[in-house]
Amino acid sequence: MAINRRIVLASRPSGWVTPENFRLETAPLPELAEGQLLVRNHWLSLDPYMRGRMNEGRSYAAAQGLDQTMVGGTAGEVIESRNPKFAAGDRVVGYLGWQEYGVSDGSQLMKVDTTHISLSAYLGPVGMPGVTAWVGLNHIIEAKAGETIVVSAASGAVGSVVGQLARLGSCRAVGIAGGEEKCRYVTEELGFDACIDYKAQDVGKALKAAVPDGVDGYFENVGGEIMDAVLPRMNAFGRIALCGLIAGYNGDPIPIGNPTWFLVSRLKLQGFIVSEHMSLWPQALKELGAHVAGGRIRYRETIAHGLESAPAAFVGLLKGRNFGKQLVKL
Amino acid sequence: MAINRRIVLASRPSGWVTPENFRLETAPLPELAEGQLLVRNHWLSLDPYMRGRMNEGRSYAAAQGLDQTMVGGTAGEVIESRNPKFAAGDRVVGYLGWQEYGVSDGSQLMKVDTTHISLSAYLGPVGMPGVTAWVGLNHIIEAKAGETIVVSAASGAVGSVVGQLARLGSCRAVGIAGGEEKCRYVTEELGFDACIDYKAQDVGKALKAAVPDGVDGYFENVGGEIMDAVLPRMNAFGRIALCGLIAGYNGDPIPIGNPTWFLVSRLKLQGFIVSEHMSLWPQALKELGAHVAGGRIRYRETIAHGLESAPAAFVGLLKGRNFGKQLVKL
Repeated sequence: MAINRRIVLASRPSGWVTPENFRLETAPLPELAEGQLLVRNHWLSLDPYMRGRMNEGRSYAAAQGLDQTMVGGTAGEVIESRNPKFAAGDRVVGYLGWQEYGVSDGSQLMKVDTTHISLSAYLGPVGMPGVTAWVGLNHIIEAKAGETIVVSAASGAVGSVVGQLARLGSCRAVGIAGGEEKCRYVTEELGFDACIDYKAQDVGKALKAAVPDGVDGYFENVGGEIMDAVLPRMNAFGRIALCGLIAGYNGDPIPIGNPTWFLVSRLKLQGFIVSEHMSLWPQALKELGAHVAGGRIRYRETIAHGLESAPAAFVGLLKGRNFGKQLVKL
Repeated sequence: MAINRRIVLASRPSGWVTPENFRLETAPLPELAEGQLLVRNHWLSLDPYMRGRMNEGRSYAAAQGLDQTMVGGTAGEVIESRNPKFAAGDRVVGYLGWQEYGVSDGSQLMKVDTTHISLSAYLGPVGMPGVTAWVGLNHIIEAKAGETIVVSAASGAVGSVVGQLARLGSCRAVGIAGGEEKCRYVTEELGFDACIDYKAQDVGKALKAAVPDGVDGYFENVGGEIMDAVLPRMNAFGRIALCGLIAGYNGDPIPIGNPTWFLVSRLKLQGFIVSEHMSLWPQALKELGAHVAGGRIRYRETIAHGLESAPAAFVGLLKGRNFGKQLVKL
């Protein structure tokens, strides 16, 4: 009988997550019931939202249970099926969690075509992060050609797609990222019009120079000082898609310093969760898939190897150590 | 020749406004040119937005000029007209500023009917404050029957109308106001379901008790600690109409303490300026006029007497000393 390895939440973090908040376990794989299938997960996606799940208390999703397999997006291959809709060899993406194998009834799995798009890309630009970018840009910011769009965490899985979609839509795209290397990638490889290195530059001053016509749409992944620096540059009737606030995920929440800008510039700020816009996914995935297959949307991955490396890689993600999409090769 | 008295901005305030920021001047009235008319202003409206105009620098409207007549809404009577659309005796509202007389070409004046609605009410519930409430509730919050609406500065010119309109639309209306007397007025005279006295109660705890089903819409006039207390009570997909932030008008801006709520509860925050929704004014004024004439919307006025009392009354407004609409009888 095959043995499954999985990572469970051992304890809830206070402040920064540490690898000790997780525990690696092994367990025999169960026999498949009628209608079930077994997936060998090849890729685990690590995403900032997981940090919120680790907390107790009210949020948009139920808290991750203690001693339960950590929630997570996965891409893998069906190795055994008692479900007529799937066959061994099918490539599938779903939410099978931090584990090497997953049993599913197929209802939450999506078969994918890896002819022109790599399997791991379905966890990145052609998956949840890409759709998040697409929904935020098109349905929250409602970006129009000629506008200026700013995105924080611009080299990340979501931010990188936001800026490239903005450019494809004839917008000016300006990124904010941490470090010269990430900024160079954002402008030279992803084709953003400009990128501000928040670790080396005064974001407010640099932004003023980078957006001579002001900011019409802001896609926020970070919060804190970066949002404070962007708000004064927002044009009247600017829209802010609030996707994440990673700056505050590991300690006290970081305030918005001067909310007067929302009033003075009649701004709209809207928090959103991509899983609540399911009706938009098919169109988003179709467009994103075509852009990735056609080379118009590029992406980068940071790959940790082996399930046991996931906790440290997740801590690194929260600290911005990843470059592009953070994955674990299982 | 008649003498006009007017108040000009003498200096820009740093922090709290003082009466010394204003100067009373006298000047002879000019002869009317063809097409002009002369109005004797009976009422001057004092409103929080004036504080923003006193600052130099970028805002949604041009700064109030130094040594120029202070901007302000007025209601009065035409006493001489060389404009065929107006006749002596017409009651008119407009923006003739802090002065006893105003000369106009008529283009920014609106004739009003005082048969069933008092002249001063056109500066309150049937004027800019009332329309502000109507637009925020109906077009920013998009309140629906059965929802819970919270409004800060609930006894004020705008807030009092927000809650009464919410009740008329079959919503639960909860106010936040300063002092037992204002709170009693809000519930007993205006018919709100509940009111929280922010000077005597812990707003967060009191709100929790007052909104057992959470808050769907929040009409914000104040900001600061009050907004911080409301955010955790907002339901998923709640909407916040940001109309004012008076708590921060006279000093450093007051941060939003925990913006994570916008994300966790997928909130929309939208700043708005009623003068940018002119297409909605006719419908709003029609409904508000009918409600006021029919006694379904009630209001209270705090009246200062004489133009020379305007500066101190304005300072009082910024400190919350008024009760209902702050007016100056000229």
